[in-house]
Amino acid sequence: MSLDLEAIYTDLHRHPELSFQETRTAGVITRELAALGLDYEEGVGRTGVVTVIRNGDGPVVWLRADMDGLPVAEQTGLPYASTARGVDPAGQDVPVMHACGHDMHVTAMLGALEKLNASQDEWSGTVVAVFQPAEEYGAGAQAMIADGVFDRYPKPDIVLGQHLTPLPAGTIGVRPGTQMAASDGITVVLHGRGGHGSRPHSTIDPVVMAAATVMRLQTIVSREVDPREMAVVTVGSIHAGLKNNIIPAEATLELSLRYPNDTARADILERVERVVRAEAAASGAEQEPTISTLHTLPPTINDADSTARLTAAMDRAFGEGTVVDPGMFTGSEDVSWFARDSGAPLVYWFWGGVDPQQYADAVAAGTISRDIPTNHSPYFAPVLHPTIERGVDALTVAAREFLT
Amino acid sequence: MSLDLEAIYTDLHRHPELSFQETRTAGVITRELAALGLDYEEGVGRTGVVTVIRNGDGPVVWLRADMDGLPVAEQTGLPYASTARGVDPAGQDVPVMHACGHDMHVTAMLGALEKLNASQDEWSGTVVAVFQPAEEYGAGAQAMIADGVFDRYPKPDIVLGQHLTPLPAGTIGVRPGTQMAASDGITVVLHGRGGHGSRPHSTIDPVVMAAATVMRLQTIVSREVDPREMAVVTVGSIHAGLKNNIIPAEATLELSLRYPNDTARADILERVERVVRAEAAASGAEQEPTISTLHTLPPTINDADSTARLTAAMDRAFGEGTVVDPGMFTGSEDVSWFARDSGAPLVYWFWGGVDPQQYADAVAAGTISRDIPTNHSPYFAPVLHPTIERGVDALTVAAREFLT
Amino acid sequence: MSLDLEAIYTDLHRHPELSFQETRTAGVITRELAALGLDYEEGVGRTGVVTVIRNGDGPVVWLRADMDGLPVAEQTGLPYASTARGVDPAGQDVPVMHACGHDMHVTAMLGALEKLNASQDEWSGTVVAVFQPAEEYGAGAQAMIADGVFDRYPKPDIVLGQHLTPLPAGTIGVRPGTQMAASDGITVVLHGRGGHGSRPHSTIDPVVMAAATVMRLQTIVSREVDPREMAVVTVGSIHAGLKNNIIPAEATLELSLRYPNDTARADILERVERVVRAEAAASGAEQEPTISTLHTLPPTINDADSTARLTAAMDRAFGEGTVVDPGMFTGSEDVSWFARDSGAPLVYWFWGGVDPQQYADAVAAGTISRDIPTNHSPYFAPVLHPTIERGVDALTVAAREFLT
Amino acid sequence: MSLDLEAIYTDLHRHPELSFQETRTAGVITRELAALGLDYEEGVGRTGVVTVIRNGDGPVVWLRADMDGLPVAEQTGLPYASTARGVDPAGQDVPVMHACGHDMHVTAMLGALEKLNASQDEWSGTVVAVFQPAEEYGAGAQAMIADGVFDRYPKPDIVLGQHLTPLPAGTIGVRPGTQMAASDGITVVLHGRGGHGSRPHSTIDPVVMAAATVMRLQTIVSREVDPREMAVVTVGSIHAGLKNNIIPAEATLELSLRYPNDTARADILERVERVVRAEAAASGAEQEPTISTLHTLPPTINDADSTARLTAAMDRAFGEGTVVDPGMFTGSEDVSWFARDSGAPLVYWFWGGVDPQQYADAVAAGTISRDIPTNHSPYFAPVLHPTIERGVDALTVAAREFLT
Repeated sequence: MSLDLEAIYTDLHRHPELSFQETRTAGVITRELAALGLDYEEGVGRTGVVTVIRNGDGPVVWLRADMDGLPVAEQTGLPYASTARGVDPAGQDVPVMHACGHDMHVTAMLGALEKLNASQDEWSGTVVAVFQPAEEYGAGAQAMIADGVFDRYPKPDIVLGQHLTPLPAGTIGVRPGTQMAASDGITVVLHGRGGHGSRPHSTIDPVVMAAATVMRLQTIVSREVDPREMAVVTVGSIHAGLKNNIIPAEATLELSLRYPNDTARADILERVERVVRAEAAASGAEQEPTISTLHTLPPTINDADSTARLTAAMDRAFGEGTVVDPGMFTGSEDVSWFARDSGAPLVYWFWGGVDPQQYADAVAAGTISRDIPTNHSPYFAPVLHPTIERGVDALTVAAREFLT
Repeated sequence: MSLDLEAIYTDLHRHPELSFQETRTAGVITRELAALGLDYEEGVGRTGVVTVIRNGDGPVVWLRADMDGLPVAEQTGLPYASTARGVDPAGQDVPVMHACGHDMHVTAMLGALEKLNASQDEWSGTVVAVFQPAEEYGAGAQAMIADGVFDRYPKPDIVLGQHLTPLPAGTIGVRPGTQMAASDGITVVLHGRGGHGSRPHSTIDPVVMAAATVMRLQTIVSREVDPREMAVVTVGSIHAGLKNNIIPAEATLELSLRYPNDTARADILERVERVVRAEAAASGAEQEPTISTLHTLPPTINDADSTARLTAAMDRAFGEGTVVDPGMFTGSEDVSWFARDSGAPLVYWFWGGVDPQQYADAVAAGTISRDIPTNHSPYFAPVLHPTIERGVDALTVAAREFLT
Repeated sequence: MSLDLEAIYTDLHRHPELSFQETRTAGVITRELAALGLDYEEGVGRTGVVTVIRNGDGPVVWLRADMDGLPVAEQTGLPYASTARGVDPAGQDVPVMHACGHDMHVTAMLGALEKLNASQDEWSGTVVAVFQPAEEYGAGAQAMIADGVFDRYPKPDIVLGQHLTPLPAGTIGVRPGTQMAASDGITVVLHGRGGHGSRPHSTIDPVVMAAATVMRLQTIVSREVDPREMAVVTVGSIHAGLKNNIIPAEATLELSLRYPNDTARADILERVERVVRAEAAASGAEQEPTISTLHTLPPTINDADSTARLTAAMDRAFGEGTVVDPGMFTGSEDVSWFARDSGAPLVYWFWGGVDPQQYADAVAAGTISRDIPTNHSPYFAPVLHPTIERGVDALTVAAREFLT
Repeated sequence: MSLDLEAIYTDLHRHPELSFQETRTAGVITRELAALGLDYEEGVGRTGVVTVIRNGDGPVVWLRADMDGLPVAEQTGLPYASTARGVDPAGQDVPVMHACGHDMHVTAMLGALEKLNASQDEWSGTVVAVFQPAEEYGAGAQAMIADGVFDRYPKPDIVLGQHLTPLPAGTIGVRPGTQMAASDGITVVLHGRGGHGSRPHSTIDPVVMAAATVMRLQTIVSREVDPREMAVVTVGSIHAGLKNNIIPAEATLELSLRYPNDTARADILERVERVVRAEAAASGAEQEPTISTLHTLPPTINDADSTARLTAAMDRAFGEGTVVDPGMFTGSEDVSWFARDSGAPLVYWFWGGVDPQQYADAVAAGTISRDIPTNHSPYFAPVLHPTIERGVDALTVAAREFLT
């Protein structure tokens, strides 16, 4: 390959950017696309990049890679670890890390584009490569759609994408049907009444209100959901107060909710609201809590026929046993919007980035969930090889399967 | 008077400063002291100011006024409301407000100094006026002592001070013995293990750990303290997480604890630690919680004989019934350090700042604790008159009682 | 004395009876009254006994002793420990113990009656001795009033009574004003929906609803009551479910609430109801909780003048320093109804039953609240002497003070 | 049929008996077996009954039906509703109901035995009919094994059994592999220190300890189990205290735990113990909690080949579509012990008892989990027909499939 993918990856990893701030990342992408001789458009959906390879008649295959990092303080100790900082939507200065592998997604996409571009005599059709911003806010895909991607570029006959995951490097994980959960991000502001820390009786303490709410929210999953169904109610952030001796006037919770389908979504949203309102009432709150939606992600549903084709193609390319059924993931994605809104089928798969020996040892010890850092962990650190190569090849094989 | 106390007060109110950052406030003080022809020293205990009026033989009377504001977003709607912001010790940009009346304390002290200065032919002795920083951090008095106030200025024969409070304007509140509670500020960091919001089982959720801890801390007051004894366990701030879909690695609580004496202090600190450690254990935390002390305040104990003298003097000056027993306050003060460390007696009293009609109405309606904003409330707003005048006179009368 | 008070006491202690079931106890009382040659009436207020000593003109002095035991399994290991059982109002077979000292109250009353009867030439007036049932249900005094005690016997000019307490034996504790708290006993039934223990989602789990309610009730005392005011919210019993694998349909809580006065009573009852209803709502309960009152006890308020007379009389009789101010007790009594409803003043005092050396050791070690069993403890065990003698004499001295 | 199965069912329903007390039930069974001319043995595993039909060479097929009722107060309003009461292992007088359908299990078994007995010319082999007691305590199967069923009767070549469930009447539900969850029943006694309800500070309140424990146990399922895995932590009973104004010395919780396999079992038991011990520590308990096991049930695993044969046989007998995959059930069974300990394969299926129209309406309204009473509900009430007939036929068809 002409591109130095390891250098690109470690550079991206060292310089992660928060959602909708991926300007340096876009700069790296366009520099490499230019090196490949490909045209592109920048600023699509604010900070996204799109490039199109038109190669005669045939299907339009969309390849999608997301670009953004996360407000996580990297603790991997890697030589190329991030020390970057950014400003989050609340105006806070925060650490930033590629703790979800989007740097690897971009790297693999660039590698696949080089291969597809160089092999145009072997296929025909159109490849649309979508570098999407702000997946972590669940907002980037919709921003690109709002920016006219379906009008400005050939509409997809199929949407393909891939995500790095803590499977052994070399392994591909995919299943037909629901591959990833639906999700909502919501913000809850609990309104109390502030006052002096020594005079709780003159206040309505929002810290206690918030704590009781968090404890009660646990019972939605533990008591109200069929134990055989997947559901997650995570309070990912809680903030109240500036000083130990001032009882603040309000508390803010941010929740991440996960479910397999839209029925469960409705049920759980209703229960969350019920609990939040009742706990405010238990505190004697004089103002109803404020509940607002940060983002809504549909379930990621893989088209059954296309998934079967992709699985067969990968087994041929990489050997039998390469593709496993990873089960449904409780994580969520906004890649679905590209398929939902265009009516195209979707196949979204995972590829592994964990040293196979380390993985095997953890399986043997029964300590997978403790020893293997997951996405969003400050220790998330894929091995470079063969992760990069398998990511490039997986995307190339998949694209070729659906081109003609 | 030559000083325009209303202008001084509203100026200070408009420009509050956080603890140990009271440089503009010190500038106002020294400007006015200079206008009175008084010498002073700045930068005592970092940002404090001291001035001494030497007027022949006689007792040394210390008058103390604290200077700092609080990280509270003012909501009084007053024309002179604060819109100031500051940077707190954690590096956060926060709103600042004189929500505890220290602007009034400074104003009254300046007025009293003008009166005492102008009436030197009527008394003899020495007045040491101490403008103290950082009372809200419980750190300013000790900083001034560490900076040598007892060596650099005449040591006190008595320490006097006053605090604005939600009594009717005109009223003085004081009692012999324990006037204000002892207090500790402590910080608790709960260590969990971070991860993806959709994969709680791969994490140790510090938000749930914190919520359970807050709920359990309530039982110290509700179950473990004699119902006839005063105790407060306030969690004034709780912070964890940056994003809804990332489970953070830790949560931070700041607690304000209040008690009448040192025995109760030891008991409650032990119980807080017991609860915090046990709740971390209940979560399966792999690291013990980190517990650290922000500040320690002794009880504020008024000398019985001196309090009787002061009460009698104020009754003579302001009329019988002006002085009431306000009971013990659950709030705390660091003024005691000046008395404790010098061996001098202390009298520390309260003076009211609430419109008397509004106060009477609230009493009649039984809604005092709801309708009258307390110290540290974003609505705390003393009426200017006669609050300023009574503050000036109370300090003057008190000083004169102990001078000769 | 002709009565063998130690034998009477140990017999009563061995044979405690639950409220309104004190028939054997009444039999002991009437047997001893007969031995003294006194008339009596049985069955007053269901199981009470009243005897009157008419001795010429003079004040009518009521002496009151309560009779009932408690559903506590005695663990004192005493040779005369109770192994009795009884059937409580819910039909449950329960252990019974004189864990509150009412056996000592009865014993002391009998001794005092012997003394007063034998010394009729030294006083004049009327003594009405009221052996009251069911104090523990807060129901016996009202039952006797409903049964006509004010009509059937001379109405009191003063009501006197005493209670055994963990002070050193020999000591009397009394204070003017509020001596004991007001109290309510309430029952809360939380309605959920039952089902199979493996299918929580098809139920509304009342056990979780009850647990959340108990935790939230803690915040009334910890956050909503002025830290300087006495308040107690105890959940003394919680019952739900019959089997581990059946989620029951409801849970029952019994609460004991304590406050110094009627304003606080109204506030706390409102808060309890608010919390209970909100926690049911948080669970999505389809039926409102059922809240009912078990009993309502007024504060026990000692008449100031009478208390001063009694204190002086006891100091004369037993030596200076015998009478101490025990502070307000958080416990409650129904003796007040006799004073409230007749308009007579009340003096109600405590007398100690703890070995003085053991008490002094615990004071020195700072372990009073741990080492000295309190009323209602399964270890409650007064020393026999001088507890019996001081109880007899205290009642005799008090009665004589108010007779002429 | 000669047996009046409807009369047998309604009689059994009206007279439910608690586990290991099924003597009247055994009497009904033996009366009907005698009427069929079958020999039997009573008192097997305390209150079980076994009958054997020997009919030449061929496989030994065990049919199992459980017999016991539950401590549930029936609220069906049926003319044959139970008003029975029993004494549970704790000595409590409790209501009893066939809330799990074991009366229907016995009825269907009797009907199947009549059919198998009458059709001996159509099959050969041996039928062992096991009427098992105490399934609800998870103890009956092991009691029968301990009593020598494998020695006293022909050992099984296959074990068959069936359970009534809220599927539409007529429907059979069965799946290969794990059909029902593993389960443990455990008892937790939390030790506090009792005392007077007005003096919480002299006690260690076990009610609060229990409430905090229940709330914390919720987080095992909500936070510590992979959201895609089945787990249930139910606190089915909680008991503490006898009276509102006595703080009791201890609280007792009974838990029902459910998991798909033995790894999950070990994890969850460890977490429950961790939470229980930590919450006791948070309360400052002076004695460790007492944790004991009530029963341990293995997962109910259907042999794949045998299940396929059974499904095919039922589809032939009842029509295509009769057999559905009901998914794994979170409930548990002790029937597995007969298969585990003998080494025979097991097929255990469900049959429906809900009016099909009512079921269809609830499906359409999305209110299945609300409107259809589940096993253990006080409203559990199968329609008599065709439930009885389908239960008889299912057992007969299944037995015939494995006989020759």
